[in-house]
Amino acid sequence: MYTAPVDSRQLLIDTMSELMWERGYADTSPREVRQRSGVGQGSMYHHFPTKRDLALAALERNIPDLLPAASELDDPGDPMARIEAYLMRPRDPLKGCKVGRMTQDPQVREDPVLLAPVARAFTQVHASWVRVLREAVAARQLRDDLDPERLAHTLMAVLQGGYVLAIAQQDPGPFNNAVAGALDLLRAAAPAAPDHKDKKRN
Amino acid sequence: MYTAPVDSRQLLIDTMSELMWERGYADTSPREVRQRSGVGQGSMYHHFPTKRDLALAALERNIPDLLPAASELDDPGDPMARIEAYLMRPRDPLKGCKVGRMTQDPQVREDPVLLAPVARAFTQVHASWVRVLREAVAARQLRDDLDPERLAHTLMAVLQGGYVLAIAQQDPGPFNNAVAGALDLLRAAAPAAPDHKDKKRN
Repeated sequence: MYTAPVDSRQLLIDTMSELMWERGYADTSPREVRQRSGVGQGSMYHHFPTKRDLALAALERNIPDLLPAASELDDPGDPMARIEAYLMRPRDPLKGCKVGRMTQDPQVREDPVLLAPVARAFTQVHASWVRVLREAVAARQLRDDLDPERLAHTLMAVLQGGYVLAIAQQDPGPFNNAVAGALDLLRAAAPAAPDHKDKKRN
Repeated sequence: MYTAPVDSRQLLIDTMSELMWERGYADTSPREVRQRSGVGQGSMYHHFPTKRDLALAALERNIPDLLPAASELDDPGDPMARIEAYLMRPRDPLKGCKVGRMTQDPQVREDPVLLAPVARAFTQVHASWVRVLREAVAARQLRDDLDPERLAHTLMAVLQGGYVLAIAQQDPGPFNNAVAGALDLLRAAAPAAPDHKDKKRN
């Protein structure tokens, strides 16, 4: 996409993303972005007239970190196995989620323009969850009175909230517990009579 | 506890709590706390030599907002009814949780002293959850192969993560869905043969 050996626009975006993650939006100054990135003032204002423009680009950049992970949910194969694999995928609970964290950044959460890419990312992840949960219901791995739309939000919340609990305790345990407990509940929510399954195999 | 008509120490704590909630720790200056509270510089430094001391007092102050709610879990009565009542209690998903939010504040999450009251609050809420979930298992409202320690973290994460999803979408729907889905799963995780319950009644 860019041919220059050092792409100052991309460098600004990456640096802003790092600083927002380390300090939050309010505490990140354009001067620090320039100092850390080594990009000059003229170039910065050429690419991003305001700090908010740069923040928006940094948020857009972070979204693929959330989405390819969720795309595992869209893989072919046994739906419950995909749900398990996605929930149990190694994560760093003490770091948390770059996208989710932004909802707790005071200036981001009050700015609909900055929140928009965050909302869009979660909408996409939700759609992936709904699909795999519907497949699990169709495969009689989950009871058919469960609502995939709701459950998708429940399982997304378990991951996002698990980070909150782990960071509070500075211990990955609460995150791992939250996820394992969700899996226990999903397994307990299999149809009541699994030995009748063969009769209804489609 | 205090007899003065205006208690400057309490006023400083309340103001700091408000400002941390509105702007985050990094973006809150001692000068703003003085301006909004009307408390003088001498009095401020007498009570709180550093901004961090004041922040710690503000965090301690916010904890009772989380804990009395959780104490509903400790009420007497049907355990599953208490779980339902607590999960479905009216909340403002777009505001989120004052205590949980602090785990996403860049300077708070890196400071073990400031995180300590947050961790303590979650530990207490977890203990209440474990007790009511154990009672639900004992009352055969939940399968006895479910682990109350895990499930407690799962349900706490659903609430904390539900706020993240609701704020991202600027819509309470994802929070309400997450909670309703968790309740659906708990109901689905009742023991397999409820009509045998009478035989095992204790």
